Amino acid sequence: METTVRNKQVILRDYVKGVPKQSDLMIVSNTLELKVKPGSSEVLVKNIYLSCDPYMGILMREPTPSTLALLDAFVPGKPIGGIGVSKVIDSDDPAFIKGDFVWGMVDWEEYSTIKMPMIFKIDVTINVPLSYYTGILGTLGLTAYAGFHEICSPKKGETVFVSAASGAIGQLVGQFAKLMGCYVVGSAGSTQKVDLLLNKFGFDDAFNYKEEPDFDSALKRCFPNGIDIYFENVGGKMLDAVLLNMNICGRIAVCGMISQYHLETRDIVNNLPNIMFKRIKMQGFLFMDFHDQLEKFYEFVHPLLKEGKLKYVEDIVNGLDNGPAALVGLYHGQNIGKQVLLVDAHMVL
Amino acid sequence: METTVRNKQVILRDYVKGVPKQSDLMIVSNTLELKVKPGSSEVLVKNIYLSCDPYMGILMREPTPSTLALLDAFVPGKPIGGIGVSKVIDSDDPAFIKGDFVWGMVDWEEYSTIKMPMIFKIDVTINVPLSYYTGILGTLGLTAYAGFHEICSPKKGETVFVSAASGAIGQLVGQFAKLMGCYVVGSAGSTQKVDLLLNKFGFDDAFNYKEEPDFDSALKRCFPNGIDIYFENVGGKMLDAVLLNMNICGRIAVCGMISQYHLETRDIVNNLPNIMFKRIKMQGFLFMDFHDQLEKFYEFVHPLLKEGKLKYVEDIVNGLDNGPAALVGLYHGQNIGKQVLLVDAHMVL
Repeated sequence: METTVRNKQVILRDYVKGVPKQSDLMIVSNTLELKVKPGSSEVLVKNIYLSCDPYMGILMREPTPSTLALLDAFVPGKPIGGIGVSKVIDSDDPAFIKGDFVWGMVDWEEYSTIKMPMIFKIDVTINVPLSYYTGILGTLGLTAYAGFHEICSPKKGETVFVSAASGAIGQLVGQFAKLMGCYVVGSAGSTQKVDLLLNKFGFDDAFNYKEEPDFDSALKRCFPNGIDIYFENVGGKMLDAVLLNMNICGRIAVCGMISQYHLETRDIVNNLPNIMFKRIKMQGFLFMDFHDQLEKFYEFVHPLLKEGKLKYVEDIVNGLDNGPAALVGLYHGQNIGKQVLLVDAHMVL
Repeated sequence: METTVRNKQVILRDYVKGVPKQSDLMIVSNTLELKVKPGSSEVLVKNIYLSCDPYMGILMREPTPSTLALLDAFVPGKPIGGIGVSKVIDSDDPAFIKGDFVWGMVDWEEYSTIKMPMIFKIDVTINVPLSYYTGILGTLGLTAYAGFHEICSPKKGETVFVSAASGAIGQLVGQFAKLMGCYVVGSAGSTQKVDLLLNKFGFDDAFNYKEEPDFDSALKRCFPNGIDIYFENVGGKMLDAVLLNMNICGRIAVCGMISQYHLETRDIVNNLPNIMFKRIKMQGFLFMDFHDQLEKFYEFVHPLLKEGKLKYVEDIVNGLDNGPAALVGLYHGQNIGKQVLLVDAHMVL
């Protein structure tokens, strides 16, 4: 039996300046023994799906105390990493055995050797695509669920605005808000995405921000009575316009600010005093603040998926070689729905 | 008995542009019958102290939907208004009788006829200066108390930064934080104010922001381990530097942004993504969100005042004619402590 295999990896060349480019990443091939060392407590997995998420671009930049508060940066010359869905090939950790499917933090490569595993076993008796564990059934689903329900304290009849609304998290927040009986409007960056929001995810209204010369006018048109809840994914000019349109005691869940990560000079946000004028709560959060709610979230989301009451759109790209393009595409809005990378389309599981 | 008296008033000439100037206000004299109409439910008061507060400058500007969320704007040609301490002269409201001392919303004038009174009776058996009801025992005290304890959820040993720290609210927040066992640093705009913070109010450290070319360095010097709680009174560049120095899951209570109200182009706040990176909560609030806590606050604050455990510094200016200068002086940091206007130094109560 052959135990040494090729292990292709996606490597960060050097710290990124500006918007990440494909050339900031490169593919290298190494080899790997398909075996963990006895006594190492390691788990060796074959990666099936890798998640492409906007925050990864932050980790490609030279770290600052601010970004280190989020996560450690990627290391030039080493593979980038993120959430993945994988199959256990060999294990010296009694919690995992060969053949288990797992999701959690892995490097961007064909095979990962995981020490002190931050991975969770997947219950394959639940009949959902494995790729969902990179999103709706993983950290992003929990982010959408807890961010909306815990940070925003929504009430029936309230108005909700979601930016980057067709993205992995936005599409879920919009649907959770509809389930709560809220009035929901989303912004996205193409006609096709706006169509998805209206006709697939059931948003009450939506607009293509690229076709709106004035975000304030667009928001006033969609929210004549103001915004109670803003689920923030983009930052910058959109946030500035939202602050003008928030209602008294409104809530802003800050999930991301994708438009601002890679600017040398960030957009001017002129309307911050509205936080005081209108007694607005604006709060950043991460899924890990709510990790104890994962079971509760599953109890909520599994029946919805089973009954078809929750739509989920993925944009799956095939092949690790295409990973860099898929990842940097996020910063140009190229993905339609949750961006996922299938490591090897011909993989035999 | 003479029943018609002179009633001097401080009138807003026109909506203010830029920083309020003395010439934006003028003194006029009218006359007034010292009697309320039977059946009117009105209360007629003689104003003793008037409170000078930064938010009043916002109300001097042409109203916008944002500022209207805070309070109605002042009306050009009519008196400005705010919190005052007054004595009841005549009353058609059974809740108030002649001779009562009250605090609440009045116009800036010698005598006010109050309809639908937003005033509270003062218990004169508590031996404190009447002027305290414009500040520590009024809305500002409650603002400091509830803003710090409710919005910031402080814990013993946490680090607290207060801007405009020698002002009416800042001096109280700093002392409340010390009582909680926090490490407290304040910023203010003169050597004399910094001295007050250190030697009167018991702050652990303080700096004169006018002598700091780089707020980020000043904060890093004072908070080598970061800031857990920021009580925000100024906004702009200071907020931007604070965001760089906040700790994970830090809290920012937005009480005011005095540096930004009157700028045509507000300061650039470049570090907003830190709200996400560090999961910061930033929340605006008003005392009225906590009006049900006034009794609880009095139970907390009365013994502290009685035992001399709470210091409170007022800057009292004499005479209604000097009101405009006192009010606009706030925007140049001229006051040392809570700015109060004594309407008539020779008043016979």
